[in-house]
Amino acid sequence: MASQHPDFMAERLRSLTQTGADTDMGKLLRKFWQPVAVSASIGPGTARPLRVLGEDLTLYRGEGGRAHLVGGRCAHRLTLLHTGWVQGDDIRCIYHGWKYDGAGQCNEAPAEGAATAAKVKIAGYPVHEYCGLIFAYMGEGAAPQFDLPRKAAFEKPGLIVLARVQVWPCNWFQMVENSLDAVHVSFVHLAGKVGPFGEAVTAAIPKLDYTETDAGIRQVATRSASNVRISDWAFPNNNHIVTPGRTKESAWVHRGVWSVPVDDTRTYKIGIYAIPSVGPEADRATLDHFEKFGDYNPADHHDELFLEKKWPEDPSLQLTPAQDYVAMMGQGAIVDRTREHLGKSDLGIALLRKIFWREMEAMRNGHPTKPWRRLDHAEDMKMQGRREPASA
Amino acid sequence: MASQHPDFMAERLRSLTQTGADTDMGKLLRKFWQPVAVSASIGPGTARPLRVLGEDLTLYRGEGGRAHLVGGRCAHRLTLLHTGWVQGDDIRCIYHGWKYDGAGQCNEAPAEGAATAAKVKIAGYPVHEYCGLIFAYMGEGAAPQFDLPRKAAFEKPGLIVLARVQVWPCNWFQMVENSLDAVHVSFVHLAGKVGPFGEAVTAAIPKLDYTETDAGIRQVATRSASNVRISDWAFPNNNHIVTPGRTKESAWVHRGVWSVPVDDTRTYKIGIYAIPSVGPEADRATLDHFEKFGDYNPADHHDELFLEKKWPEDPSLQLTPAQDYVAMMGQGAIVDRTREHLGKSDLGIALLRKIFWREMEAMRNGHPTKPWRRLDHAEDMKMQGRREPASA
Amino acid sequence: MASQHPDFMAERLRSLTQTGADTDMGKLLRKFWQPVAVSASIGPGTARPLRVLGEDLTLYRGEGGRAHLVGGRCAHRLTLLHTGWVQGDDIRCIYHGWKYDGAGQCNEAPAEGAATAAKVKIAGYPVHEYCGLIFAYMGEGAAPQFDLPRKAAFEKPGLIVLARVQVWPCNWFQMVENSLDAVHVSFVHLAGKVGPFGEAVTAAIPKLDYTETDAGIRQVATRSASNVRISDWAFPNNNHIVTPGRTKESAWVHRGVWSVPVDDTRTYKIGIYAIPSVGPEADRATLDHFEKFGDYNPADHHDELFLEKKWPEDPSLQLTPAQDYVAMMGQGAIVDRTREHLGKSDLGIALLRKIFWREMEAMRNGHPTKPWRRLDHAEDMKMQGRREPASA
Repeated sequence: MASQHPDFMAERLRSLTQTGADTDMGKLLRKFWQPVAVSASIGPGTARPLRVLGEDLTLYRGEGGRAHLVGGRCAHRLTLLHTGWVQGDDIRCIYHGWKYDGAGQCNEAPAEGAATAAKVKIAGYPVHEYCGLIFAYMGEGAAPQFDLPRKAAFEKPGLIVLARVQVWPCNWFQMVENSLDAVHVSFVHLAGKVGPFGEAVTAAIPKLDYTETDAGIRQVATRSASNVRISDWAFPNNNHIVTPGRTKESAWVHRGVWSVPVDDTRTYKIGIYAIPSVGPEADRATLDHFEKFGDYNPADHHDELFLEKKWPEDPSLQLTPAQDYVAMMGQGAIVDRTREHLGKSDLGIALLRKIFWREMEAMRNGHPTKPWRRLDHAEDMKMQGRREPASA
Repeated sequence: MASQHPDFMAERLRSLTQTGADTDMGKLLRKFWQPVAVSASIGPGTARPLRVLGEDLTLYRGEGGRAHLVGGRCAHRLTLLHTGWVQGDDIRCIYHGWKYDGAGQCNEAPAEGAATAAKVKIAGYPVHEYCGLIFAYMGEGAAPQFDLPRKAAFEKPGLIVLARVQVWPCNWFQMVENSLDAVHVSFVHLAGKVGPFGEAVTAAIPKLDYTETDAGIRQVATRSASNVRISDWAFPNNNHIVTPGRTKESAWVHRGVWSVPVDDTRTYKIGIYAIPSVGPEADRATLDHFEKFGDYNPADHHDELFLEKKWPEDPSLQLTPAQDYVAMMGQGAIVDRTREHLGKSDLGIALLRKIFWREMEAMRNGHPTKPWRRLDHAEDMKMQGRREPASA
Repeated sequence: MASQHPDFMAERLRSLTQTGADTDMGKLLRKFWQPVAVSASIGPGTARPLRVLGEDLTLYRGEGGRAHLVGGRCAHRLTLLHTGWVQGDDIRCIYHGWKYDGAGQCNEAPAEGAATAAKVKIAGYPVHEYCGLIFAYMGEGAAPQFDLPRKAAFEKPGLIVLARVQVWPCNWFQMVENSLDAVHVSFVHLAGKVGPFGEAVTAAIPKLDYTETDAGIRQVATRSASNVRISDWAFPNNNHIVTPGRTKESAWVHRGVWSVPVDDTRTYKIGIYAIPSVGPEADRATLDHFEKFGDYNPADHHDELFLEKKWPEDPSLQLTPAQDYVAMMGQGAIVDRTREHLGKSDLGIALLRKIFWREMEAMRNGHPTKPWRRLDHAEDMKMQGRREPASA
């Protein structure tokens, strides 16, 4: 890398952060199913605006309950469609009543007639709901099978599965890089307050191992024989980790977290918690806890965290994301990677970028990209932290 | 149009929206008296800043009550003039006391002397008050006679005339286009809640007729033999309509509404209500109603309207503008007209643009523009909605 | 000047306002000690972000009490350093624990090792505390002796010295120009309300005298034989003035005020009040008064001042700065000097610019700049206003 021209390198680094429909990364991300909203955020017969990958879209749920994702504006005079009416599985514009189906096909233009309607189409993306999240396929051609996002650990019987989304005002790629950076845990999660996560991991500097898998990258951070942290990151933007539960007695929790660009300076941190059910009373406490603290978004507390240095109360749903937020947002909206000093402890980040550059280059050259597929072996993340996760 | 080069067409469409002093549209709009403020908004001996057509100005009223409109900044060190003192019919700068008359002529520069003052002039525009509005002429040369903005319907005896202004954060031209778009009424004014206006007009798709007149465009929308809606639009940005009154029993109201650019992304929706006086008690109720609901500006409730979809209470002064706001603001700050799909129901918009392009071209070529003059026949807007407007 | 090309003049005027590290003015300002914060704003063992001259920095105070000013971001992954830990006289990054000393030298990179740390350095600027202010030297090479900012009047025994900082959202140079503009006092400080300052100075237009000194510019404004206002301005951005005290009976106060760029559109108005101690009771009242009104920043009351024209209560700590704020902010964030009309009463401003252009040119041509040094004669500012200042 040292011998490469700085402008070339700057451009390469910038390419990691640009996700518009006409960019290499934008095209690459659009080849995958992406979670775009929590299922519960949109009721039958309602619509709302949704920005994903720099595109302004309309998310609506038909009166029968099926979710749809179409363009943000009516083709006629470009008014926002979500302000109109959901009728059956269609959505009608407030301005002159043009109506679209879930594929974006106009099927009624009241003051114009059927011939006009037939010629009009806006964007319309396939949608799939899984684990309380709405996924969309925003790429060209037919959507791939809905397989890579799935995990056996999320589909086992006896789980409470909870979904959550936050918008962070920074670029998606520094959030992905944080997933492949095991060292940060030893510092970031000891900042301000030490929650159960920090306690479990300890401040020891881990021995690192990053391996490319069929699905993405397996990350192993060994702090001691009894403190081995494993996570499976799936291309292009999902991390599968386990974290401590709500109390010291709680089982550890499997989590799937995606970093999905709203646009290049905002990112959905969106994902699920798969929590072992352990009886009605404890489950009720888990749901109450989620109800009470799950709405917390550190971005709503930016100045408190950065200037007043006040940390939130709840360790699992508030403190851990707040600590990550301070570290990642602290890099700026889009970190200037031309000024960074990576070292040997940034192995995971180096591998991550290498894979993305390889895949973007293949795509640009018209070569096949890697056929990522979900890991078919059982998840073996048992040795996270110092205790056995009860859920494994 | 299909055969024209897309860049040429994009430029033509853009010219409709640009109103700075050095643009074609800016020059055209400046040939007309424009309402810029509500008379009651500025008391004797006071001054305030006012932005019109992208120019930062100072509106002040002399101690004797006469309104003046001069440049926004002192010529000396460019401090905002409205922060200074009104003295007689002059305004004095806070910073070093330079004083200007209502024509913008400096007549005192205390630490400099009379010779300096005599050489200094800032902008100063003729002002005329009518129906509770302050009009200004911001063009070159002598102001035309104050005639085109007048309507016989506003000057009849026995009227309560009320003035109102709102700033909407969108381009003036999509507000003008909405005036020449009779179809929108069948959808927009049935959205959320149906007020008396929606009820009167019904959801039927009208037969449309648009005709160029001496003053602008006459618009006739026929929904049935007994439901004919007529409005007279006057060049370049005034609409004369009738709308239902405050209650089902109330007479219909004549309204003059102007869309005046604050700049290219904000617009004054400014105008008057001419309400038939029908006795002290009902008149008092009318004034109370205006007092209570007349300050409503949908732009202050943007997120409520667009995200929470909560509609305001009062149908005439709140709901109708809120519905229009959602439709027009929903197009964006400046709608991208290169992406629109106009149809046969957009006749009024097509005529409107044709007239503006014709006038701008005449002006550019040094040819005379059309000598628009107010309609001298009596207004005949009787068949608005399903009932006879009592005021006609 | 009249014969110079307008573009050349525009560029010359612009150069007065640009203070980035790569600009002429930025380089010139960095040759001087600059006050950047109030000492009391940063406690031992704490850190905060600080922007000065367009640079994002970290201000922290070691656990032993010594202040340090280093770069804003860790060199590793560019996270904001102030969010980390102060340890001894070092600061450690929250993200991966890299640690820096007060000179910006990295001395620990936990997951990398000592060899990596030794090669890493961020910005680190010398710091000096004086009169309750933290000064920094942000230039190249060794810092000059801390001498020019000192005044005998601040170091006399028997003074209460109070420090204060405000951020105003305008360019630093229009604040400096205001210091060399004696005429403004006759208008600005009579606006809204007349406080003791306005009363003392009166509305009379002064005879002006501006002389370049060893330290900067001496300004003498003579309104009458018994009303002579003198101030000593020190290059490049400090003003030494005297102003009335808290009550009519109070002694006059020596003040040092610096205008330090946060960046090109925001400025620290930072300085001290040297108030003669006159006994425990009166001193307590002085401190209480400062406690009660000293936090006032007119920028927090912008709309009140500009639109509602509501003036604050306290004449010395609130009204006077509010009046100046309206005059200077009224010029805009960066006043457009190409449009101004300077006259004979702008002598001070003309001299000020001439000196800055001369110094910038010398620097650009590699010639020595003037060796500004503090005035060694006793301050003789006795005849300020109509009464003898008790403190002189």
